[in-house]
Amino acid sequence: MDNNVNVAVSPSAGQRGPAEHERRQQILAAAGEHFRHYGYRKTTVADLAKSIGLSTAYIYEFYDSKLAIGEAVCSLCVVDMISELETGVNTAKSKPEALRSIYKCLLHQGFRLMNEERRMHDIFAAAFEEKWNCLESFNKSLFELIRRIIVQGREAGEFARKTPREETCRAICRTTEPFFHPILLEQDAGSLDDDAAAVANLVIRSLSI
Amino acid sequence: MDNNVNVAVSPSAGQRGPAEHERRQQILAAAGEHFRHYGYRKTTVADLAKSIGLSTAYIYEFYDSKLAIGEAVCSLCVVDMISELETGVNTAKSKPEALRSIYKCLLHQGFRLMNEERRMHDIFAAAFEEKWNCLESFNKSLFELIRRIIVQGREAGEFARKTPREETCRAICRTTEPFFHPILLEQDAGSLDDDAAAVANLVIRSLSI
Repeated sequence: MDNNVNVAVSPSAGQRGPAEHERRQQILAAAGEHFRHYGYRKTTVADLAKSIGLSTAYIYEFYDSKLAIGEAVCSLCVVDMISELETGVNTAKSKPEALRSIYKCLLHQGFRLMNEERRMHDIFAAAFEEKWNCLESFNKSLFELIRRIIVQGREAGEFARKTPREETCRAICRTTEPFFHPILLEQDAGSLDDDAAAVANLVIRSLSI
Repeated sequence: MDNNVNVAVSPSAGQRGPAEHERRQQILAAAGEHFRHYGYRKTTVADLAKSIGLSTAYIYEFYDSKLAIGEAVCSLCVVDMISELETGVNTAKSKPEALRSIYKCLLHQGFRLMNEERRMHDIFAAAFEEKWNCLESFNKSLFELIRRIIVQGREAGEFARKTPREETCRAICRTTEPFFHPILLEQDAGSLDDDAAAVANLVIRSLSI
């Protein structure tokens, strides 16, 4: 059985020219570095060009706006996050444990960004606020990951089959939101760890036979 | 059995002088009006004083800051919201329906504020961002309301008794968050109505005997 979710990170809107161009990788890497250091909102394409040692016009050959570059940087981060979630799911001993690992891992990733990579956390906050494509990719991948756990759990007789599958998957997705939304993490009053475990337990009970 | 949650709206920090002073009510009403019209963030205590026809110094006899006035205005709104939630709960035909009414009513209230009383919505966003006391009161009252449904549902044999009660109530509270948090409502991609019903169903299944 295929245990990898196809991370549907679409090429960012506003991406131009050949996808695999070496310069594109260079621009992306430099942009990621620059954003992590100076923040996304305050950086202009001219700042980026200067720090990479390229002309602004040359950068515009690859991305048509700062937003397009931001989306591409965010997408790379999303791929890593989904991949980490998958590892947790694939190494879990049971499907209930796989669900628990999702809540735990999402919260861990969210706090890590907020506390250790504050600028990337801010990029994610912008992505949520402005509904970037990469966020939709993240939500889709998370949904697929949860859906796979539910489907496999039903097949293995670990979860009840009587519940409406798609509705349940969507509901579970919603219950994960307080544990990775950047603004909610910022406003946390300190009980998110316990609450994530409590919500995971509640969800698992709702699936039990 | 007492079917009213004691709405624990503490007197706002920063409130001064006698609680029931007629002037205080007048200031509150005028402040509410003013905030609804011009917004909270842009209003100064001097603006408020001018619009009420009182001196700034006189207002400071009742509230020690704009925040204190904002909290008091927000608290009034919280009392109304909790009271509306209670009505929904008290008129529900069963405990599962009472839970459903909570999700529905929270979402309804959130959208109503956002779409019809945008300035109050913004005050709530400020309350979440700056962790105002009135928000803690709201969360406490919501928790108590949910807790009462669970306790009564167990007593009536509508819900399973084996689940850890306090943990479950806390988890349920968390799952309501995406349906009333002002920032999440602003970022809604249009599926909140269906998702609220789906999450309510999931929660009810987790409580079933």
